[in-house]
Amino acid sequence: VTHRSKLCGFIIDCRTDDLGAAAEFWGRALGMETRALPAEEGEKYVRLVDRNSELHIEVQKVDHPSRVHLDIEADDIEAEVRRLESLGARRIVQQHSHTWVVMEAPTGQRFCVVRKSSTGFDSGANEWR
Amino acid sequence: VTHRSKLCGFIIDCRTDDLGAAAEFWGRALGMETRALPAEEGEKYVRLVDRNSELHIEVQKVDHPSRVHLDIEADDIEAEVRRLESLGARRIVQQHSHTWVVMEAPTGQRFCVVRKSSTGFDSGANEWR
Repeated sequence: VTHRSKLCGFIIDCRTDDLGAAAEFWGRALGMETRALPAEEGEKYVRLVDRNSELHIEVQKVDHPSRVHLDIEADDIEAEVRRLESLGARRIVQQHSHTWVVMEAPTGQRFCVVRKSSTGFDSGANEWR
Repeated sequence: VTHRSKLCGFIIDCRTDDLGAAAEFWGRALGMETRALPAEEGEKYVRLVDRNSELHIEVQKVDHPSRVHLDIEADDIEAEVRRLESLGARRIVQQHSHTWVVMEAPTGQRFCVVRKSSTGFDSGANEWR
């Protein structure tokens, strides 16, 4: 096994000046509680808590057009990015501290590879060889 | 209680002539098995099976730009659409047989309201009054 990965959730990217209003809409639309995040993180992200699943869901304030993007968590980000490149995805943005990488699918959607964080990672992740 | 609803999953909309290649990429990227659907449905949709959750995930062949859209399932589609309109969403497309409605969030993302279908609906859905 070289590394492991799985879908961990999605981020609702909103081009807005009012993160609070965006999070309130999505929280009420999906019937999920909103949870403020501390300090700098809280200026860009609000967590939505899904009591039906382990999904990690956040509303994010962004400058690009609004969209929904999927997050894949991995125990080795670089190995996962290379695996996805071999399937045809492209590396778009790499954060300086290498805690996430933005990629683009051959079909055009942006998505992220992030560090493993879900409690179900060990039992649920796919093993890649 | 007027009706109930919950997030049921998401659809990976792909602007492509090759639904099979799109589904193969996403299935391998997310580590999920692909499942062909019968007849007409199979010309536009491939199911991805997430063994970690009850999420309903499909890859869809579309003519509009590629994106990911969320699906909300409801036991009364019209009541759910009206609830979402009261939160600021707009009705965009209504299928003739009323089995789904495309909406747009105030933050710009398209999403769908569909008929309840998940096995966890009764225990997991939000109740609206």
